Amino acid sequence: MRGDPARRDAAAYPWSVEIQTRFGDMDFNAHLNNVAVAQLYEEGRVRFNWHLRDTFPIGRPRFLVARVEIDYLGEARYPAPVMLAAAAIEVGRTSWRAGLGLFQGGVCLGLCDSVLVHRDPGDAAGSAPIPDALRAALGERSLRA
Amino acid sequence: MRGDPARRDAAAYPWSVEIQTRFGDMDFNAHLNNVAVAQLYEEGRVRFNWHLRDTFPIGRPRFLVARVEIDYLGEARYPAPVMLAAAAIEVGRTSWRAGLGLFQGGVCLGLCDSVLVHRDPGDAAGSAPIPDALRAALGERSLRA
Amino acid sequence: MRGDPARRDAAAYPWSVEIQTRFGDMDFNAHLNNVAVAQLYEEGRVRFNWHLRDTFPIGRPRFLVARVEIDYLGEARYPAPVMLAAAAIEVGRTSWRAGLGLFQGGVCLGLCDSVLVHRDPGDAAGSAPIPDALRAALGERSLRA
Amino acid sequence: MRGDPARRDAAAYPWSVEIQTRFGDMDFNAHLNNVAVAQLYEEGRVRFNWHLRDTFPIGRPRFLVARVEIDYLGEARYPAPVMLAAAAIEVGRTSWRAGLGLFQGGVCLGLCDSVLVHRDPGDAAGSAPIPDALRAALGERSLRA
Repeated sequence: MRGDPARRDAAAYPWSVEIQTRFGDMDFNAHLNNVAVAQLYEEGRVRFNWHLRDTFPIGRPRFLVARVEIDYLGEARYPAPVMLAAAAIEVGRTSWRAGLGLFQGGVCLGLCDSVLVHRDPGDAAGSAPIPDALRAALGERSLRA
Repeated sequence: MRGDPARRDAAAYPWSVEIQTRFGDMDFNAHLNNVAVAQLYEEGRVRFNWHLRDTFPIGRPRFLVARVEIDYLGEARYPAPVMLAAAAIEVGRTSWRAGLGLFQGGVCLGLCDSVLVHRDPGDAAGSAPIPDALRAALGERSLRA
Repeated sequence: MRGDPARRDAAAYPWSVEIQTRFGDMDFNAHLNNVAVAQLYEEGRVRFNWHLRDTFPIGRPRFLVARVEIDYLGEARYPAPVMLAAAAIEVGRTSWRAGLGLFQGGVCLGLCDSVLVHRDPGDAAGSAPIPDALRAALGERSLRA
Repeated sequence: MRGDPARRDAAAYPWSVEIQTRFGDMDFNAHLNNVAVAQLYEEGRVRFNWHLRDTFPIGRPRFLVARVEIDYLGEARYPAPVMLAAAAIEVGRTSWRAGLGLFQGGVCLGLCDSVLVHRDPGDAAGSAPIPDALRAALGERSLRA
């Protein structure tokens, strides 16, 4: 993901949210701790999923996080908020890839991809094909060329 | 609680557990963050409750944390583990007070009291009298004179 | 603190800040975890101290958290933000008490008092008298009658 | 990494550490939260680095975490501890890849790779070639065939 310049461009993402940082996010290097940054990405991903649910007729799909990849490109700092921009990057048969960028003061400080498996409602551990309505919604929220 | 010298004496507590500290517990002062210390007390309290359940015929009572008081007496540090010692301090009609001490290298670095309300199983928000068996168990795990 | 009705009245506090909640603040009871709530109070206290520094000619005093008391009055929930209201409650010779109230949807869900010791800049572990300018600032930000 | 069966075999790793889980690591699904699992990997990585420092004549190298990849293979649960096994996976010119496996009850529940850049001590943001002694130490702690 770090090889794609569009991923570092906030304007390429179809959706974003501002999230406050917390004093407790800092570690002893006085920047945001790597794990705290992972929590900020989680928050962005959760809110992006709600945005999808609130905007498109997709019902309430449940996803399982199968994989997370984070590129730490620069230090994020407290107390300024961060801007988390999100897009659907790839859509497969039973899973899709949510791509996020973390920006502070307009500068891209990191990227995060999450592979989200569509859960079979009748089988907590199983996966299910992505329905057409969800596939269409993800297409509407893909990264802009 | 800080006025009672017994509370700073590990030997006065009837039960204790060793808990590992984590790199992520530190804040930028390079000591354990106050909120991380509060999480360590939570962990000690949860494990003390299991100890009670595993040792005495009290069933599986549920408690609601109504109040927490923490005295920060000294800085706790990573990566040494901490020792959390616990006792039942006071037992009222529907609630009791769990008293914890946090020790590192044998030195008391803090105290925590939690007021735990016995939940009425039929009413999530309601309180219920402490049963005799639980009262007896708490008496067996009170602070030593 | 829970005995004072003014403490549950947002209008009685001279300052407040809205803080976002996070998915990761929830525990398995699907409400905000007690320790996560303690982190929210920490955030409110830190930002209240900045407000004091930014508003009054008090320099950059450093404080040590000596004691924290939290009353949990009701369950706070994700994803709505919380409103943290703060006031200086008592001012002693070398320490003061910061009083916070946590509100969600206008309802007071908890109270937190923190005893903050004014640190001697030349002695990390020592306390120092509260200067007149700081005392005056705290007087300007006390709880309204 | 998930494609390599050795990575799911605890016996293939040259070093491991047991880490306690905490009540606060759970989210409302009553399993360990993904971000809490990321903190457990951080803890394993930090302790693996200390192991290297304590065992080999490598001085005190500093690393910057440039990238983290986590595969979530199964749900980890509280209160059992987790076993984190670690190895040096790849060693490049100025960075190396720390590979971790997370095991609970002997079952591999996840994998984590971290790309660690060797920091130039004279330039906080810069990278420096991996010294021979460190390269040799990482070779001694590589994944077993």
